[in-house]
Amino acid sequence: MMKRNLKYILPVAIALFTACSNNQKMEDPKQQNALTFPQGKKITNENFTGTAYLQMLMDADSLNSISVGNVTFEPGARSKWHSHPSGQILLVTDGVGYYQEKGQSKKTLRKGDAIKCPPNVAHWHGASADTALVQLAITGREKGETIWLEAVSEEEYHASNQ
Amino acid sequence: MMKRNLKYILPVAIALFTACSNNQKMEDPKQQNALTFPQGKKITNENFTGTAYLQMLMDADSLNSISVGNVTFEPGARSKWHSHPSGQILLVTDGVGYYQEKGQSKKTLRKGDAIKCPPNVAHWHGASADTALVQLAITGREKGETIWLEAVSEEEYHASNQ
Repeated sequence: MMKRNLKYILPVAIALFTACSNNQKMEDPKQQNALTFPQGKKITNENFTGTAYLQMLMDADSLNSISVGNVTFEPGARSKWHSHPSGQILLVTDGVGYYQEKGQSKKTLRKGDAIKCPPNVAHWHGASADTALVQLAITGREKGETIWLEAVSEEEYHASNQ
Repeated sequence: MMKRNLKYILPVAIALFTACSNNQKMEDPKQQNALTFPQGKKITNENFTGTAYLQMLMDADSLNSISVGNVTFEPGARSKWHSHPSGQILLVTDGVGYYQEKGQSKKTLRKGDAIKCPPNVAHWHGASADTALVQLAITGREKGETIWLEAVSEEEYHASNQ
């Protein structure tokens, strides 16, 4: 009798489980990002280690000097050390990553975090080693553009963090 | 025999359906917002019609004059007409809403939209009549605070939009 019951229960269970799994696809950071802001184009300049993508959501102009970009870092990818003359605000919309200022410990970033990078302080940010990071980068441009420095070494990238 | 099979199938189906329903809660704008940035506290000042919530993600300070707030409008809720001396950028993270500048047609806002409100231009924004709106509001504060004007009338709110 158990065998006959399984014949009915199993297909029902499989069908419903499949429906549930489709809902869970939203958890993948790049898929989640695709649901909110576009991932944009792969960054091809020399200012990043690993693979990252940028979609500018708003450019600075003569009336409003704030620019907003959506940045996706694949696992292991990060910016080089750099600084912003007007500082920057990072809003993490998905995934797990790192942020570090020169002279400070590396910090872990998670979905929902908001970080302020002070003006002219060298820092870097990127994904964690095994999970992508998606962040909005809000940058005042009135005092000039980003100043790019050296790459983040493997030792710095893998250092223990707070 | 059908009755005996239902006795086994039904509990399994109900259990799995409940599990699926819990996943689908992510689609509701306020729940989605709770998964990214906090909804914050109900706004109690006189500057809004209907129910809205605000969570400041980053305050302006002496080094960086940009503030970022997460604003949730319940269906039908909207700001009053207002303007910003440095302008504002809105990023829609969920739901459906409206944005209108004085003298222009009302526009529909959807998840993924980015809007720039020019400095000193009177405008309003809010949720649509039946769906909440969740947006990030990015505002330069170096030239002063928001200037609040009159409420958006029912006629203005329900006007046909682009």
